[in-house]
Amino acid sequence: MRVELVNTGTELLLGDTINTNAAWIGQRLAALGIQVARQTIVPDGAIIRTAIAEAAQRSDVVLVSGGLGPTNDDLTRESTAELLKLPMALNDGVMAHLNEYFAKRGKPVSEATKRQAMVPTGASVMPNPFGTAPGLYFPATLGAPLSWNAHIFLLPGPPRELKPMIENEVEPRLREWLPDGASRRVLYLKVTGVGESDIVEAVEKQLEAIAGLDLGYCIRGGDVDVRLAGPQSAVDAGAAIVRAAFSDCITSEDRRIIEEVVVQLLTERGEWLSTAESCTGGTIASRITDVSGSSRVFGHGWVTYANEAKQQHLGVPAELFEKHGAVSEEVARAMAEGALKHSGADHALSVTGIAGPTGGTAEKPVGTVWIALASKNTETWTLKRFYPGARDRFKLLTSQAALDLLRRRLSGIARRL
Amino acid sequence: MRVELVNTGTELLLGDTINTNAAWIGQRLAALGIQVARQTIVPDGAIIRTAIAEAAQRSDVVLVSGGLGPTNDDLTRESTAELLKLPMALNDGVMAHLNEYFAKRGKPVSEATKRQAMVPTGASVMPNPFGTAPGLYFPATLGAPLSWNAHIFLLPGPPRELKPMIENEVEPRLREWLPDGASRRVLYLKVTGVGESDIVEAVEKQLEAIAGLDLGYCIRGGDVDVRLAGPQSAVDAGAAIVRAAFSDCITSEDRRIIEEVVVQLLTERGEWLSTAESCTGGTIASRITDVSGSSRVFGHGWVTYANEAKQQHLGVPAELFEKHGAVSEEVARAMAEGALKHSGADHALSVTGIAGPTGGTAEKPVGTVWIALASKNTETWTLKRFYPGARDRFKLLTSQAALDLLRRRLSGIARRL
Repeated sequence: MRVELVNTGTELLLGDTINTNAAWIGQRLAALGIQVARQTIVPDGAIIRTAIAEAAQRSDVVLVSGGLGPTNDDLTRESTAELLKLPMALNDGVMAHLNEYFAKRGKPVSEATKRQAMVPTGASVMPNPFGTAPGLYFPATLGAPLSWNAHIFLLPGPPRELKPMIENEVEPRLREWLPDGASRRVLYLKVTGVGESDIVEAVEKQLEAIAGLDLGYCIRGGDVDVRLAGPQSAVDAGAAIVRAAFSDCITSEDRRIIEEVVVQLLTERGEWLSTAESCTGGTIASRITDVSGSSRVFGHGWVTYANEAKQQHLGVPAELFEKHGAVSEEVARAMAEGALKHSGADHALSVTGIAGPTGGTAEKPVGTVWIALASKNTETWTLKRFYPGARDRFKLLTSQAALDLLRRRLSGIARRL
Repeated sequence: MRVELVNTGTELLLGDTINTNAAWIGQRLAALGIQVARQTIVPDGAIIRTAIAEAAQRSDVVLVSGGLGPTNDDLTRESTAELLKLPMALNDGVMAHLNEYFAKRGKPVSEATKRQAMVPTGASVMPNPFGTAPGLYFPATLGAPLSWNAHIFLLPGPPRELKPMIENEVEPRLREWLPDGASRRVLYLKVTGVGESDIVEAVEKQLEAIAGLDLGYCIRGGDVDVRLAGPQSAVDAGAAIVRAAFSDCITSEDRRIIEEVVVQLLTERGEWLSTAESCTGGTIASRITDVSGSSRVFGHGWVTYANEAKQQHLGVPAELFEKHGAVSEEVARAMAEGALKHSGADHALSVTGIAGPTGGTAEKPVGTVWIALASKNTETWTLKRFYPGARDRFKLLTSQAALDLLRRRLSGIARRL
């Protein structure tokens, strides 16, 4: 099945908005085994008509997003109706939705907005619970007189309106049209602490030998998502291979990121975490508190960037700095144990390292970092890592390694030195 | 001047990579007064030939990125040479660059890599100091026999290779070809704490009356970048209007973000900052420590998510929680003043609020937040804000408002209640 995307939006071409919709749609379709064949972005206005016609002539399905709004240069609906020579008529259901939508907000329905209730004859309305413009579906048969045979979907541009419509209206139809659509499964194994090339080397040959399995990798936020798609049996076989090779590195199988996993593990155990951060400067605490419900597991954190702060608030002995330096196993350990003591938490994570670009030495180059995890009634774990490169990447990977150390302890898995 | 972008890259269509290059190029060209007319993304492989030919027939300039690498499906160079019927020859300069590049890394130049030194006759090499594949420029005259007249640029896909090549090789040529290219200027006024619609309402009419001024808005990270482009005199006239309306809200005129501005202001004054964060959970500290050199201005920070932490580490009196609640002006003030005292810093920022989605009440709904700034020998400033909505957005906007409060104090500007 050949699918093309057409986006309308001057803001995308001016670079004022990054096209995250396209990547999201790409992932959803890849999960169905469809690789988007082409993506075309054109400005707001009448050029959308040409772009849709070109894509429809080449494709089985065209997903068009944007240009359904109330302003003068939102012409996607009208352009498609013209192309297919379909008369438009006011749709009572959409009009009722608009009336209700604006009544809730205490505003009248403007004349411009009423255009959104005009529906080309033969097109189906796809409801938009999160906005005013409904989606429209034009079955392939409507294009037949014009020498093409493509299903055309018109979708709203804002992500919070587009995404549910793709999931609820577009994907079920695609599944119907795909030979194996109904039985197709997708699984994401999130692997932490292992590089893509190591994963490829360890499992790709075995995975490629599984008939009907589509394999993909997505690197994001310091993790690699291994995407397995296909019939249930193929996905199961693929998952077994990845689990056998990387069981202890698989953070989640449901796309949850590591801070969500850690907060859940702590919540289940009724335990508390504290943090003592030097080089990550609050990134670990910030990631933990990104998770709703984190106030049940996280109460006390320190950002001890200066050595005086490490001494004063965490009780790190002054002589450790003289003897071993601030970036050392000993200081990391003392920071974690100090945070554990002063917070009363069950676990405390600490990091101390050199984020750069300055501050490195031959012995401790930029990118060097020590991580420690102190827990009540257990030995303190320490870990050395080396993440040279940009400052933001250093903070991301260091916080990732620290959270993974905690995940391992909470899950009863050995640490990975 | 009509410019189109063509990207090759299966990873973009699968959604494994977000197309940030396209937005970046769009912004650079918008600054020159050029709106990208169309953007086309195709998979790796031979289809790139069709996409380039289509774009070249419609355009004056085609910017192609990706597909210059050493693997089998990197076919951009060969496809363009075939299209234009140009023979390829080994280029000694590129070969010398490849030899040097790999010698530095102690690796041999593979046969596959040598393909990158093949240059179509008539094309100019654009050096790539950050990678192996050079860029190639095909002057419009080379396409004339084929009924088009477009300049074609082949550029590498990785952002750190693409961006300098656009700046150093593509933009100077575009400026030459534009009627006002050489004299064209661009200015970004970063406005903090004011919504786009308020900016539009206050200044858009006046700005649109300036002949030759191109105006754009880019909303990112809680700020609005007002982009003014055109002849120097038009940009100056536009900037004067925006400055008159929003002088105290303009964070920077050189694209620096607020944490960079604040770290620089503190550095210039030789002053120290401390942070005491509840609902932002370390986001302010993390943003500050994203800036290289922040260790000279930031030493001590607290993440006091729990009330006990606010009492224990910052000395917030227990009766304040009973009397006013944790989310109150009084607690914010006591947190900031406690952080100032316990850190010895010159300034201390605090925040306490309800990030949601739970924890709101009728009196203090989700999104309510109090911010305080305590400074040595000065009155403490407090500020109430209301940012309902998603948790990550709440943290972003709250940290933005806190950093802006500090920027105002450091710049001698009144706060905005």
